[in-house]
Amino acid sequence: VVELHPRLKEDTVEIGRFPLCRVLLMKDANYPWFILLPDRAGVSEIHQLTEADQMQLTRESACLARGLVQAFRPDKLNIAALGNVVPQLHIHHIARYRHDPAWPAPVWGKVPATEYPFDRLSAVAAKLRYALGTEGGFAPQD
Amino acid sequence: VVELHPRLKEDTVEIGRFPLCRVLLMKDANYPWFILLPDRAGVSEIHQLTEADQMQLTRESACLARGLVQAFRPDKLNIAALGNVVPQLHIHHIARYRHDPAWPAPVWGKVPATEYPFDRLSAVAAKLRYALGTEGGFAPQD
Repeated sequence: VVELHPRLKEDTVEIGRFPLCRVLLMKDANYPWFILLPDRAGVSEIHQLTEADQMQLTRESACLARGLVQAFRPDKLNIAALGNVVPQLHIHHIARYRHDPAWPAPVWGKVPATEYPFDRLSAVAAKLRYALGTEGGFAPQD
Repeated sequence: VVELHPRLKEDTVEIGRFPLCRVLLMKDANYPWFILLPDRAGVSEIHQLTEADQMQLTRESACLARGLVQAFRPDKLNIAALGNVVPQLHIHHIARYRHDPAWPAPVWGKVPATEYPFDRLSAVAAKLRYALGTEGGFAPQD
């Protein structure tokens, strides 16, 4: 298992794994904000993955997206591979609402991260785990 | 061929097509900024495409990404499906540089779009067309 970039280690908790990617939850109560992190070393762009891994990432991304829709009923999903600050390949999956603090702008650099109140973070994680079940080979993690 | 959302019609020019997606160039001289627009009506999220279309989108996205790297030698690619303002599914592919006006932030809402000087837009389009050739079934368009 590849080592997490220190920034991701600080900003997220791991809540489970797909066959290719770890599923991380951002510690930002402003949005249900998850990250897929392919377990491959030295890759910073999607097209640098093998074609088989790219297809698997696409399946896991769609599976996570469906889970987000089921768990959080968002108005829109935002999915993005940026990595200007953290070059280790990671793909944001964010449930967005018309009433969230950054809408309609993308979330980055809009409002500071807000800490989850006690036990809310694990409640959000549990909600997604419940929606995913074992879809797409998802294995929850506590 | 699906009708472009009015906002995309205003902000982009079409420079070619893959089997699934149109390739649009944003009229913003700040960054080499392209958009893949799957030719499917009524879809606003990637996971709403059929699985075959999702795989094709993944291939076309990787092909465009490699073309961007070859044509523009960026420091990083930013790839994103947002759609908070324009719900018609479209996927941004942006070549980013450490010296570009928004770095390291994402481009959205950072600096206003800058008009391309005379004939620079077609030069950028030509550069990408040259890099793509007929890779991935790309068909250039003038």
